[in-house]
Amino acid sequence: MGRVVEITDVILRDAHQSLMATRMAMEDMVPACEDLDNAGYWSLECWGGATFDACIRFLNEDPWERLRTFKKLMPKTPLQMLLRGQNLLGYRHYEDGVVERFVEKAAKNGMDVFRVFDALNDLRNLKTAIRAVKATGKHAQGTICYTVSPVHTVEAFIQMATELKAMGVDSIAIKDMAALLTPQVAYDLVKGIKTACGADTLVHLHVHSTTGVTLVSIMKAIEAGVDIVDTSISSLALGSGHNPTESLVAMLAGTGYETKLDMDRILKVKRHFAKIRPRYKHFMADYNGVDTEIFDSQIPGGMISNMVNQLKEMEASDMLQDVMEEVPRVRADAGYPPLVTPSSQIVGSQAVFNVLMGERYGTQTEEFSDLMLGYYGSTLGEKNPEVLAQAQGLTGKAVITGRPADLLKPEWDQLKSEAAALANFDGSDEDVLTYAMFPSVAETFFKSRPEGPKNLGKDPAKAA
Amino acid sequence: MGRVVEITDVILRDAHQSLMATRMAMEDMVPACEDLDNAGYWSLECWGGATFDACIRFLNEDPWERLRTFKKLMPKTPLQMLLRGQNLLGYRHYEDGVVERFVEKAAKNGMDVFRVFDALNDLRNLKTAIRAVKATGKHAQGTICYTVSPVHTVEAFIQMATELKAMGVDSIAIKDMAALLTPQVAYDLVKGIKTACGADTLVHLHVHSTTGVTLVSIMKAIEAGVDIVDTSISSLALGSGHNPTESLVAMLAGTGYETKLDMDRILKVKRHFAKIRPRYKHFMADYNGVDTEIFDSQIPGGMISNMVNQLKEMEASDMLQDVMEEVPRVRADAGYPPLVTPSSQIVGSQAVFNVLMGERYGTQTEEFSDLMLGYYGSTLGEKNPEVLAQAQGLTGKAVITGRPADLLKPEWDQLKSEAAALANFDGSDEDVLTYAMFPSVAETFFKSRPEGPKNLGKDPAKAA
Repeated sequence: MGRVVEITDVILRDAHQSLMATRMAMEDMVPACEDLDNAGYWSLECWGGATFDACIRFLNEDPWERLRTFKKLMPKTPLQMLLRGQNLLGYRHYEDGVVERFVEKAAKNGMDVFRVFDALNDLRNLKTAIRAVKATGKHAQGTICYTVSPVHTVEAFIQMATELKAMGVDSIAIKDMAALLTPQVAYDLVKGIKTACGADTLVHLHVHSTTGVTLVSIMKAIEAGVDIVDTSISSLALGSGHNPTESLVAMLAGTGYETKLDMDRILKVKRHFAKIRPRYKHFMADYNGVDTEIFDSQIPGGMISNMVNQLKEMEASDMLQDVMEEVPRVRADAGYPPLVTPSSQIVGSQAVFNVLMGERYGTQTEEFSDLMLGYYGSTLGEKNPEVLAQAQGLTGKAVITGRPADLLKPEWDQLKSEAAALANFDGSDEDVLTYAMFPSVAETFFKSRPEGPKNLGKDPAKAA
Repeated sequence: MGRVVEITDVILRDAHQSLMATRMAMEDMVPACEDLDNAGYWSLECWGGATFDACIRFLNEDPWERLRTFKKLMPKTPLQMLLRGQNLLGYRHYEDGVVERFVEKAAKNGMDVFRVFDALNDLRNLKTAIRAVKATGKHAQGTICYTVSPVHTVEAFIQMATELKAMGVDSIAIKDMAALLTPQVAYDLVKGIKTACGADTLVHLHVHSTTGVTLVSIMKAIEAGVDIVDTSISSLALGSGHNPTESLVAMLAGTGYETKLDMDRILKVKRHFAKIRPRYKHFMADYNGVDTEIFDSQIPGGMISNMVNQLKEMEASDMLQDVMEEVPRVRADAGYPPLVTPSSQIVGSQAVFNVLMGERYGTQTEEFSDLMLGYYGSTLGEKNPEVLAQAQGLTGKAVITGRPADLLKPEWDQLKSEAAALANFDGSDEDVLTYAMFPSVAETFFKSRPEGPKNLGKDPAKAA
């Protein structure tokens, strides 16, 4: 018997988020749950910001009810969620009391593993959430967002891991959302974390498959001792999604490593989603190929399409190449934030402004100034002092170096009374939290909630 | 400077054969040739049975002219072809004189590297072609078709490699057409061949990406010392095609291995085929995902769709599961041939017969009897003696154990006079060879040849 590699399947969250705009209806997932629950996974990722948002924005489905249903249908396997640290599932910093309440309610409704991350890798933005998870007795996973820049060395990431370990996390995740983690770095990083934090520190690797290289990175991470790996059932994998679960199992044949997965169960799940997938074709890319240009441009594909749209609205589509070249400069000036939501949008919009105005940073988006001034947290790199001065001059706001949420006053009572004023508010803390995450969408959702969930899948024979 | 891994790109042959039914028109490849020729490849695969067939059957294009054009546009990089040993580019055994003539003409028209294989791995079927290639001074590559069965051990493949080496090949290819080569086997096989044949024996690895695991297998083959690897430009890769060239380059970053590829050239080629690909959407699968079921079923995807069609024509679609279960038994009875053209069709059709007749081997296709009796060559496994006796009883033919082509009489003059009788025959040996490969298609092609090449690509805006 070889060393066991544990698997988390992301089919119920990140797979359809990455490949079909998070639109999969609960009724299309339910039939797979029994097999998923009995397949031998370490955990099943099934909840996060985009799924929560899509539930209330597009599917007229209560995300809390979805969580409870998952728990009922999959009692044996830990359920896992992705939590944006102090942002929870929204886009702003919430006051600590709201963070605590959210975690408590998520745990109570069935969540077992909380993967907590911050877009800037400012670990102070994880602190409250991790403490709250520990308080519930659930599994707190601290996350390193992997990115590439002159300051993001393997040593810097290992340092981050030791700090997470010191915060008392139960495991450490390496989150490679842009598929930039090459095999040798994967090896060095996992090896380094195991050495620095202790061989018994659980390390969990999350990679996307966008660049086509990350299954090899998983192999190298396994050779370096990684404990848990994220994959997705093969019938909803690859492209900007994830490496196929079944390919990982095949990869390990004869290597001395093995999973605990029941392949008969996995086959049933695969066939189920192969049947479902064509119903969502209208939300999927025409071609789920690879994109390796990001290794040079460092600009994720989703960010490029955002900038293309922005330029089109401004009737400046011919400026795209200039904007693409401006992005790495803006990112450097901002201290090399990883490019994920929301930092990718903030950096991208400012790059558009810089090019269109023909003058750098004379005009700044409010968000970019806030990023420069520390209101999202700290970055690993130094900020360009001239640009920082411009941000101060434009906004009149002070530079902050503390934890952004320390500036916030308790807000639960305010949120609760605002939520209570909405039609169809059901009085629960869960509804307050739904309102807190997405105020205007929640208002609409509460109104239409009695109509019940919508399935946006289409009969492929009738679909365009 | 690390160890160099050489690359063969299959974009001009196997990539579009695997992903768009071999339909790519020459005019859609021409603009990429200068960049391909200057990108630093070991060779460029650009010719083979299916491309030859598609040229005359669908594209009204002379395949010899295509070869000459490639040579003119890519004078620096060796051109490579796939040759079915004694079958050349057709489906029957040709007499040695035809094989020699074909190789001589291919070399004269610009071919540099001949990858020679036999569907049964009967090396006697490679002998004449390899000797003919050596006689032209070109590169003769002997090929092992990789497959999985109780008799196809790593040791058996290594033995095959030593026999190829003894035949005087310039290099040895491992051809994994079904993407069954898992990483550990890839490592053991390459290591074993290097040990048995000498470290200076060039080993060339060809894998498809169908099962999603073979880029890892390439990594392991590189660690074991493989010299040359087949990949495909990323904009026409994955699915039942190949691993992306650019992903392989990214995979090697920091590992001490490197390619000699010029990534600016590669980027241009990538963008060219990304622009071309949508024009052939009507020839492409809806979803280029992975298929890992073949690890258990051992039945390649293409073979399943053939059987599905066959059963549909016989109004017996409900028998598919029985046929799927019959295939491994028939394969075992036939001595475990690898399942590639034509053995896959022969085994598949007989499995259909066995199930439909409700009696095993009482009815046999002519091809299956011939396979049993040795007329395609020998198989690695023992044949079932009862089924062999049935084949003899049904056909009255003798079992042969010699090289099938030894039974054939010189046929060049006959082929030449038959070709000469066709309208628009141009008098060249090349035309005789075209006729010899595909007699009836050639007749039609010669007639329509003056109309010039057709491009079956469609404006994506107008395509269905």
